[in-house]
Amino acid sequence: MRLADLPTPALVLDRRRMDANAARMTAAVAARGARFRPHLKTAKSLDAAAVALEGNFGGITVATLNEAEYFAAGGIEDILYAVCVTPDKLPRAAGLLARGIRLSLILDGRFMADAVARWARDLPGPVDVLIEIDSGEHRTGLEPDDPAVVEIASALCAAPGVCLAGVMTHAGHAYHCRSRSEIARVAEDEALAAVRAAGAIRAAGLPCPTVSVGSTPTALRSPAVAGVTEVRAGVYLFGDLFQAAIGSCAIADVALSVLATVISHRPAHNHLLLDAGALALSKDRSTAATPEDAGYGLLTDGAGRGLLADLHVSNVHQEHGEVSSASPLPYERMPIGSRVRVLPNHACMTAAMYDRYYVVDGPSDEVVAVWPKTNGWEPA
Amino acid sequence: MRLADLPTPALVLDRRRMDANAARMTAAVAARGARFRPHLKTAKSLDAAAVALEGNFGGITVATLNEAEYFAAGGIEDILYAVCVTPDKLPRAAGLLARGIRLSLILDGRFMADAVARWARDLPGPVDVLIEIDSGEHRTGLEPDDPAVVEIASALCAAPGVCLAGVMTHAGHAYHCRSRSEIARVAEDEALAAVRAAGAIRAAGLPCPTVSVGSTPTALRSPAVAGVTEVRAGVYLFGDLFQAAIGSCAIADVALSVLATVISHRPAHNHLLLDAGALALSKDRSTAATPEDAGYGLLTDGAGRGLLADLHVSNVHQEHGEVSSASPLPYERMPIGSRVRVLPNHACMTAAMYDRYYVVDGPSDEVVAVWPKTNGWEPA
Repeated sequence: MRLADLPTPALVLDRRRMDANAARMTAAVAARGARFRPHLKTAKSLDAAAVALEGNFGGITVATLNEAEYFAAGGIEDILYAVCVTPDKLPRAAGLLARGIRLSLILDGRFMADAVARWARDLPGPVDVLIEIDSGEHRTGLEPDDPAVVEIASALCAAPGVCLAGVMTHAGHAYHCRSRSEIARVAEDEALAAVRAAGAIRAAGLPCPTVSVGSTPTALRSPAVAGVTEVRAGVYLFGDLFQAAIGSCAIADVALSVLATVISHRPAHNHLLLDAGALALSKDRSTAATPEDAGYGLLTDGAGRGLLADLHVSNVHQEHGEVSSASPLPYERMPIGSRVRVLPNHACMTAAMYDRYYVVDGPSDEVVAVWPKTNGWEPA
Repeated sequence: MRLADLPTPALVLDRRRMDANAARMTAAVAARGARFRPHLKTAKSLDAAAVALEGNFGGITVATLNEAEYFAAGGIEDILYAVCVTPDKLPRAAGLLARGIRLSLILDGRFMADAVARWARDLPGPVDVLIEIDSGEHRTGLEPDDPAVVEIASALCAAPGVCLAGVMTHAGHAYHCRSRSEIARVAEDEALAAVRAAGAIRAAGLPCPTVSVGSTPTALRSPAVAGVTEVRAGVYLFGDLFQAAIGSCAIADVALSVLATVISHRPAHNHLLLDAGALALSKDRSTAATPEDAGYGLLTDGAGRGLLADLHVSNVHQEHGEVSSASPLPYERMPIGSRVRVLPNHACMTAAMYDRYYVVDGPSDEVVAVWPKTNGWEPA
């Protein structure tokens, strides 16, 4: 099978680039003396998980219970569900525990600590629970010095069927950084917040074996902070234009692209149209906040090699992508029906629109594998 | 089944509102003396198609060949694929024609007219082809006065196996209008462009039976232009906050919402978190360009009734939605685990993230039906 034979839009994954991204992250986290728990909310694929887990301990992170069920069915046994759990989700979590999965839950308030404690009484075995710490993003989590951290730790420790596994945090505000030194500072804040919360728990005589941190930008910076035991990251596996803009990878490392077909030429307006629009690329505009605004994606040729430097998708409709450039468009190199590959702003958003990856190995048109993936929130 | 029992995020469709939206559009187009061909790229559901087709002639519009195949398998026989066709898509189109579907294709250039003419020679029966006209959006299409319109019409008429069905246009630039009078002007431009192109074709002695126009805002305005035979629109069926902001519907008409669970309270920051984020709501920010910026969506209670006037999703992460208000958040009315429904900015983007609709009838918690839908570009 060749890319030229595929219906478009289609999702292409460059295996060679992904392998290099995986090895780079695994080495970076190992150098930090922590274990790496890849976040599979980006890839949502067992085949990609196998690449991410190479050289690591085998545990993964997920963002939905559907992902947890999908990876559990595929044989992955240690799963952190890294979104604050709520009462309605506990029966589904119990189903995973009943299958022998080592499922870890997170929470950031007393109400859920008590709800989990009541629920865990009837479980066949103990459930791992981590307390989420806010290391500066101000999304979810408790401030590291909030007395509620120790109160909740104490309540969880006292609850039969609950194992207080530790603390976790995610420095999502690293995405607002625009320089490596800023990211290094956020990486330090992230580690310090988690270590400080763990220290408070231990000072109260309670256990806190796991101190888990991470985001792609901060995971690649190793701050001089001792005490972090686990690092998490997800988008590093594919990379994207936003990660390139903030220095987590180079554009040449981006492993994910959308194969699209040229459907219309509009020379009077110096644009052309692709059959990849808002659904195929996503409406993510994260690069707009960086000096490297790529519109809705940067164009490469059908083998993933560069075309015009600034050839980008400047506007999207549901199934149309409008391509522009400051230079005259090279229409003769891009006839109607020809193929391009669009590098996305945000790999997590783009990958979620597709049910499979067409895998290539480097700058080639040959599809070496087709990898299925999961999506959404309910089993298919 | 009740909404309270569903896993979240989940997509909720209010049947009562949808029925009213469908009836309003069907009546508006009938009053114009044209037939209505609903665009099912928004709903992607056979059950929703049945509602949209009530009182209409039975033909539909789609934006992908996957949608065409899905609706054909469900018994719909007259389908307009309203994105410029390319050579690679012709074999799949032939498959639909071989199943007896009356499939109409569109194109906007001589290259594809010739490619379709060559391909159509071997078809068992004639294929309908429409020429796309640019009525001012400058996306795809030929200018109405471009001599290529008549040249292509002539080439198509001369081609065995091709039936020149007419012209079509889409005034997508109506979405940039901010007043009813502006929309009325664009609706008139849309009709005039299509009618003018049809006139040029007829003046050359060629047939042009179909003159097809439409977008939700322009379809609801009936300009005093004779000669339009067909109107298309899609998002009208559900409505959304952007359509409400430009006057195509009221917020009380929006039939689509995302059921979400409150997962975290952050009183120190006056926000709370939902388990509906960028994937559950989409990253569409279309209301940002209107006076009614709703962030990533407006909150209602679990039965779809208003909460605080400005309670909205102000920020999204992949699976987290951050809720804000200028007033202090009513945490006591929204405990952890409680349910809300988020009205989306853009129904087409949001619906595409889900594989089913949970249907309710008015302000009720009871699920009266579960409607499957299709997504993506390839058969499942």
